[in-house]
Amino acid sequence: MPDDFERMWADLAPVGRSAASGGYFRQPFAAAERELAAWFLEACAARGLRVETDAFGNTVGWWDTGSGDAVLTGSHLDSVLDGGAYDGPLGVVSALAAVDELRSRGFLPSRPIGVSVFVEEEGSRFGLACLGSRLATGAVSWETARELRDRDGIALADVLDVDPPVSNGRVNLLAGVGTFVELHVEQGRDLVDRGAAVGIASEIWPHGRYRFDFAGEANHAGSTRMADRRDPMLTYAMTALAANKQARLVDERATFGRVEVVPNGTNAVPSRVSAWLDARASSDESLAELVATVTRQAQERAGRDGTEVEVTAESVSGSVTFDPALVGRDDWPVIPTAAGHDAGVLSAAGIPTAMLFVRNPTGVSHSPAEHAEIPDCLAGVHALADTLERLSQ
Amino acid sequence: MPDDFERMWADLAPVGRSAASGGYFRQPFAAAERELAAWFLEACAARGLRVETDAFGNTVGWWDTGSGDAVLTGSHLDSVLDGGAYDGPLGVVSALAAVDELRSRGFLPSRPIGVSVFVEEEGSRFGLACLGSRLATGAVSWETARELRDRDGIALADVLDVDPPVSNGRVNLLAGVGTFVELHVEQGRDLVDRGAAVGIASEIWPHGRYRFDFAGEANHAGSTRMADRRDPMLTYAMTALAANKQARLVDERATFGRVEVVPNGTNAVPSRVSAWLDARASSDESLAELVATVTRQAQERAGRDGTEVEVTAESVSGSVTFDPALVGRDDWPVIPTAAGHDAGVLSAAGIPTAMLFVRNPTGVSHSPAEHAEIPDCLAGVHALADTLERLSQ
Repeated sequence: MPDDFERMWADLAPVGRSAASGGYFRQPFAAAERELAAWFLEACAARGLRVETDAFGNTVGWWDTGSGDAVLTGSHLDSVLDGGAYDGPLGVVSALAAVDELRSRGFLPSRPIGVSVFVEEEGSRFGLACLGSRLATGAVSWETARELRDRDGIALADVLDVDPPVSNGRVNLLAGVGTFVELHVEQGRDLVDRGAAVGIASEIWPHGRYRFDFAGEANHAGSTRMADRRDPMLTYAMTALAANKQARLVDERATFGRVEVVPNGTNAVPSRVSAWLDARASSDESLAELVATVTRQAQERAGRDGTEVEVTAESVSGSVTFDPALVGRDDWPVIPTAAGHDAGVLSAAGIPTAMLFVRNPTGVSHSPAEHAEIPDCLAGVHALADTLERLSQ
Repeated sequence: MPDDFERMWADLAPVGRSAASGGYFRQPFAAAERELAAWFLEACAARGLRVETDAFGNTVGWWDTGSGDAVLTGSHLDSVLDGGAYDGPLGVVSALAAVDELRSRGFLPSRPIGVSVFVEEEGSRFGLACLGSRLATGAVSWETARELRDRDGIALADVLDVDPPVSNGRVNLLAGVGTFVELHVEQGRDLVDRGAAVGIASEIWPHGRYRFDFAGEANHAGSTRMADRRDPMLTYAMTALAANKQARLVDERATFGRVEVVPNGTNAVPSRVSAWLDARASSDESLAELVATVTRQAQERAGRDGTEVEVTAESVSGSVTFDPALVGRDDWPVIPTAAGHDAGVLSAAGIPTAMLFVRNPTGVSHSPAEHAEIPDCLAGVHALADTLERLSQ
């Protein structure tokens, strides 16, 4: 008898957890995340699931039963820097627990069921969110991805130690997949407000990451007159405020959460500030308009500061519409999300896809404060098992 | 015959230079700066100067001649991150060249002359500017300094490998010093505007470093509604703009050149932003008023952002008045500076002190663009030799 949900959850709790913050550091292909990957292989083995891994590190544990198009379910095991316990692992652990529940019901699927783990969903290391699923679906090419580098300058190709990959991954893992279901902790307060333990996703907002490089002139912070400066920090600061204001005005999302300053010395006017804009909007057009407005304001301020600004779109994902009907329940709320997910990438690749959300009492995500109560998690497992049973009949 | 100015200068040029930026990374007690320290010992040996080093790494090469209070001259060999070649080393190389010039003149001093190198003048590693001279004069205690940590968490006490230091350094190096003269590249355009190769310092403005810790709540950059956020990046951004505006209004200096963000992930609202304010003003009162104004504006904005701000004064230096009469020349311009120097620390400790500046055609400092033409450097050596001759007669 494999471990149940609570036991599995307790096993994962300490892995990659910072004693200082209580948050998780599970960056792809580093120690903590690799420990989780090894744990997943053991969990599959304990259930007799046949493991298949593609050249990029994406993994599926197959319940080889029935025939025809497979039903895939799962999520990811990596985290943002100092993230929460639930974003990702909840979907993987719930998928394994749902397989257990189907078996304990005595249900025999007419189609194969797979439990999947995609790598680097958060983009916290190589900067491109949903990297594993994008590679698996061909949404990003290996030629592009192999040169992505982490903060230490290490390329993805060096980490994977496979160049060129033997296959593009789609053949391995997604060929023959008919539907995909991802369970995820909710990253807002919608289900709290509605008093529901489980919800169904309607869509993902379009979103993108844009690097703003502000270039000025390094100089002495004491002896350089204010009027003689070309200080890129000022251009950045105004841009961060402008992005926030614009997103509030149009009820969308704009965040500068990552900044790198050169030389980053107390007594030096910086020569360069690089900052990353995370932007999300309700349509592709409004996303483009939001970013264009922020860019225009940055350029205007750069003109006044004597600095220069260059904007690079590092990744842009169009809107994704899910298929709530796959879940076959009209008593659970159907809600949109502005967070990206591997489910969005698979949906964009033409695979009918649904998402289930589990209530998060704090509404907070990408933070140690992210949470879900055990009864709600078990309700999620139950809902996922019902959905898998329906789809694999 | 020891190397002349140009040969010494060429020897130092490649040490710690970044091929990418052309700037210098000569952080205290790291490889490049230690190479310069070893070079200085050799340069002293080549001139028959007796070397004395205190427990903190400050070094003087003594020309043991004459009697009575000594005349000290020198500067530092460390740099800011990605700094220029001249800030510091120009004063050390010029001091050695001035000793050579006095000897070639056949001058025999009536007092000892010392060539000094103080460690960590820039504060680029342990955060406290003029650390070596502050320790040597007792302006900072070893009990305070030993716990200063660099960005990797390494304490000064670990680097120095001396705990407690055998002496406080003052006894070793500064006892018996009657006057100090520091030659330095100019860090502004005053001498360019006046068409003079060499100038004399009148004073150093009061200045300080203040750490602003902005605390908010980490959250998901996509799914968190703008209104639900407590984003410390916004409070920081407004504070950086407010500091700049206030300094312009009152014709003083305020710079945020260093920022550290936690967790610094693209898709996470930060939980914390720490930023360092470098502030300088023409009087102690106006410096306090400048910092109080910026702090008040930061707190007001924090109230609106739902964040918190805490301000810590990491170092504050009062105004320093030099003694231009020591130089005994009224044909060179006398100019103030807003940059801190070891000369200011020695002056504050009661040692009569003068500074000489050498023209910098770019006016830029703490940057790879910092420069001085060789003829101006040689005029500086000549001026320093004249001053030493006058003071040691």
